[in-house]
Amino acid sequence: MTMPKYVIGIDYGTLSGRCVLVDVNSGEEVAESVLNYAHAVMDETLPSGEKLPSSFALQHPEDYLDVLRTTVPDVLKKASITADDVVGLGIDFTACTVLPMDENGTPLCMKDEYKDNKHSYVKLWKHHAAQPEADEINELAAKRGEAWLHIYGGKISCEWALPKILETLRKAPDVYENTYRFIEAADWLSLMLTGEETYSAVFAGYKGLWNAETGYPSNDFMTALDSRLDGIVGTKLSENVLGMDKIAGHVDERGAELTGLNIGTPVALPMIDAHAAMPALNITDDGDLMLIVGTSACHILNSKDIKNVEGICGYVKDGVIPGLYTYEAGQAGVGDIFDWFVKNCVPVSYIQEANEKGISIHKLLREKASKLDVGESGLLALDWWNGNRSVLVNSNLTGMILGMTLQTKPEEIYRALIEATAYGLKVIVDQYENSGIKINNICAAGGIAQKDEMMMQIYADVLDRQIRIAGSTQAGALGSAIYASVAAGVYTDVKAAAAKLSKSDIKIYKPITENVKAYKNLYREYKILHDYFGKENKVMENLR
Amino acid sequence: MTMPKYVIGIDYGTLSGRCVLVDVNSGEEVAESVLNYAHAVMDETLPSGEKLPSSFALQHPEDYLDVLRTTVPDVLKKASITADDVVGLGIDFTACTVLPMDENGTPLCMKDEYKDNKHSYVKLWKHHAAQPEADEINELAAKRGEAWLHIYGGKISCEWALPKILETLRKAPDVYENTYRFIEAADWLSLMLTGEETYSAVFAGYKGLWNAETGYPSNDFMTALDSRLDGIVGTKLSENVLGMDKIAGHVDERGAELTGLNIGTPVALPMIDAHAAMPALNITDDGDLMLIVGTSACHILNSKDIKNVEGICGYVKDGVIPGLYTYEAGQAGVGDIFDWFVKNCVPVSYIQEANEKGISIHKLLREKASKLDVGESGLLALDWWNGNRSVLVNSNLTGMILGMTLQTKPEEIYRALIEATAYGLKVIVDQYENSGIKINNICAAGGIAQKDEMMMQIYADVLDRQIRIAGSTQAGALGSAIYASVAAGVYTDVKAAAAKLSKSDIKIYKPITENVKAYKNLYREYKILHDYFGKENKVMENLR
Repeated sequence: MTMPKYVIGIDYGTLSGRCVLVDVNSGEEVAESVLNYAHAVMDETLPSGEKLPSSFALQHPEDYLDVLRTTVPDVLKKASITADDVVGLGIDFTACTVLPMDENGTPLCMKDEYKDNKHSYVKLWKHHAAQPEADEINELAAKRGEAWLHIYGGKISCEWALPKILETLRKAPDVYENTYRFIEAADWLSLMLTGEETYSAVFAGYKGLWNAETGYPSNDFMTALDSRLDGIVGTKLSENVLGMDKIAGHVDERGAELTGLNIGTPVALPMIDAHAAMPALNITDDGDLMLIVGTSACHILNSKDIKNVEGICGYVKDGVIPGLYTYEAGQAGVGDIFDWFVKNCVPVSYIQEANEKGISIHKLLREKASKLDVGESGLLALDWWNGNRSVLVNSNLTGMILGMTLQTKPEEIYRALIEATAYGLKVIVDQYENSGIKINNICAAGGIAQKDEMMMQIYADVLDRQIRIAGSTQAGALGSAIYASVAAGVYTDVKAAAAKLSKSDIKIYKPITENVKAYKNLYREYKILHDYFGKENKVMENLR
Repeated sequence: MTMPKYVIGIDYGTLSGRCVLVDVNSGEEVAESVLNYAHAVMDETLPSGEKLPSSFALQHPEDYLDVLRTTVPDVLKKASITADDVVGLGIDFTACTVLPMDENGTPLCMKDEYKDNKHSYVKLWKHHAAQPEADEINELAAKRGEAWLHIYGGKISCEWALPKILETLRKAPDVYENTYRFIEAADWLSLMLTGEETYSAVFAGYKGLWNAETGYPSNDFMTALDSRLDGIVGTKLSENVLGMDKIAGHVDERGAELTGLNIGTPVALPMIDAHAAMPALNITDDGDLMLIVGTSACHILNSKDIKNVEGICGYVKDGVIPGLYTYEAGQAGVGDIFDWFVKNCVPVSYIQEANEKGISIHKLLREKASKLDVGESGLLALDWWNGNRSVLVNSNLTGMILGMTLQTKPEEIYRALIEATAYGLKVIVDQYENSGIKINNICAAGGIAQKDEMMMQIYADVLDRQIRIAGSTQAGALGSAIYASVAAGVYTDVKAAAAKLSKSDIKIYKPITENVKAYKNLYREYKILHDYFGKENKVMENLR
């Protein structure tokens, strides 16, 4: 009988860090611990009290260290084991969440001379203040015909590293000048844990404009953007980018002090939170598509093929599964749209009814909406409340809904919004397949996927495909633990580890023939409007 | 000094009759009396308790007589005058509100053998059960190229007389067979008051498919529609249609008993409620446009010119002002759309805020919406929640709104809906002018026009025209009194009477240059979408 040994996975989300202790032989999640970040998201004021502009979203790196200090000892204690039983550690993180550090690895915001400068803090993924810089980069790259622009579907997001860095250069040149490296928070944690400065390919590839073949954008491009960017590649942007066939290193003295783990414990390269779920859900094969459905949605596809797919956010070789390309597409608003609706558009009578039944307003609306036949409401929506990420890549697009009559009820609108997100997904799936990239399996993860049966059935019906629902609510953390098990050498590769440790599906939704037929007609109408408002009639952009 | 003499005007609305006593020299409204109909609108059950289908809306004619019995004596009493002081009576009525009567003038619903048959009752203007019959009439008329169809913009409404009559023939052939005449409730009241059977041109012209030049649709058309309609014109449909240069007659014995007025008192021809407001507001000249803004909107234009204006509901010579053609256009939803919004889309926090401030939710939304700059919200709507009456004449069109983001607030949507109705109005105004019919003056009446300053300013800005706000809230009843004063011979014609007795404006809204400019751009976008969804992309109809 094998002695039980354990790996630890930590999922760094937007508001908290979640740590799980996993039995490396059985995959059982033995213990769990969560810590909310003390500073949460700083979108109104700095710790000094200074007001922040409205599109700012900052974080404090000390909060990330507190997660290590608190949750790792906590899971050991809960499982009544010692550090000797832990054979590996992996983390996953939001992205692009980037910070400036000095040559000692100290974030500038933790130094007295910079702590009142907002640009010295972590710029969280949803920090949107660098939109003008993103526009500038897109314009220049398009004008110069930069080859890397195609990889990202012809447009990059203000959430990515270079716009955020350029914003710092323009708004706080002293912070820029005194930055030794701009580093993803995930990679900074590798440094804190191991003492080694490594950069995980998945972050660099999706968010840093880096790719294995040609590296970062050329110095020519950088200096054309701003002469002060001269020489940034190799200095403030590290080229030590590693694929998932490598590891970040081993816990050093500082890492051991932070976590209570033994010096020498292997640490996997960090993974983007969404991607970490893939091994956890055993989505590791060519043609496997994972839907992650939350406030927004992220769709990640493994493929052996390399193709330019218009409007897809990018692909990275070895980024998630060594040997495969991983493509990423997104829908900028999903659950956020439903929340907007509930917050802004639900009448008091519905709130009262939900209260009387003791259920959430979302649940009440789902109950009512699930009684509607496909197409019964006569409503049709475009799911662009937060712009369109794929395949139109236009954050200035906005939501639309049509078909309202004086008899239209809130649940009908609610359902139309859900259906709109399903149609938006179908556009993405079709785009892949039309580009010659096959999709064999679809697996959905995230809270909405597990809770909302009506929505998942609608997705299966609209896509006319079976949808598997992933079995873990902590897919990110489990995925990180799986990478840790490979880093520990327990398994030879991610596929083998995932086959053993991943969660099995909890449910499979199969398309219902009658609904599939009805949705085919509705989707045809959606697609016409998608192309009309996305490409022909610029009214949404004109109105903004 | 002239002895004061009085005229009486009675406005028959959807739920009540409102009677005013007016000084025929000064125009002063000396007394007023209102009676709610005992049966209100019967849209759920007959008096027998029989359930009604959902699109039914019936009334009981006894309620109309009760208004005469109660309110006329009441205003005399309130003013301390006698019947000798009353020189004329006029009424106005909703339309098309039609009933079947026997040769004695008794409504079939008041006869024992028919009182349990729903088709024997008054079919109120908003009785919508005859939509299939309206569709059938439209289809046949279009196929046969019936010339009269152009007068009504190419399509007639299920609210009009012929669909309602055809519905009776099909659903209750015995009621049809035993009907001596189908008669507007307004004309039936003329008969009750004077003993003479006359038909007012404005009802026949707008709602009865009659016109001065060619009369009713041909017997050929009628029999093609249903062989049992053979010979209906001249029998069940009277051809004794009179223009406003005539009067209905004089109070007879029965009329005197009903009202307490003297036998011989002149009775004006009845007027459609909306049109009766025109003399009351002194809107009697060539090029004068009256907006009546309520749950829906009705736009009535006087013109010396006769033109076919595509999508306009009809025109009638001498119908309102002798010598002028009167055109009518409509917006099927205005206040109804705002009510839908308040009922279905306003969050509980807004209800609480309104309660705390002690104001209506409409008022709270107006307060918030009026603080927005033109175009600030990025929203644009099509005002088709209840279909489009003019100029697309398509009741299967539906509402649309676009521009929503996760930041969109209820007041922004509310304002976008108001703006949409303004754009809808501009389409109508432009349609007139592009057809060669001039509009010189615009005057708005109705509760919304008097209360909603933001909305009226938006209308002035969008139309880039001055908008006068009418001074009377009882415009219909005052207008009826003005017609009564002409019937009485106190004035030679309506223009002269209106000049003396009409109310002066209470307010004038002038366009604000800066807003006019901003709305020009927004209207351009609206018009593109209006044409796209109204003519090119049939998605709204496909979805229904």
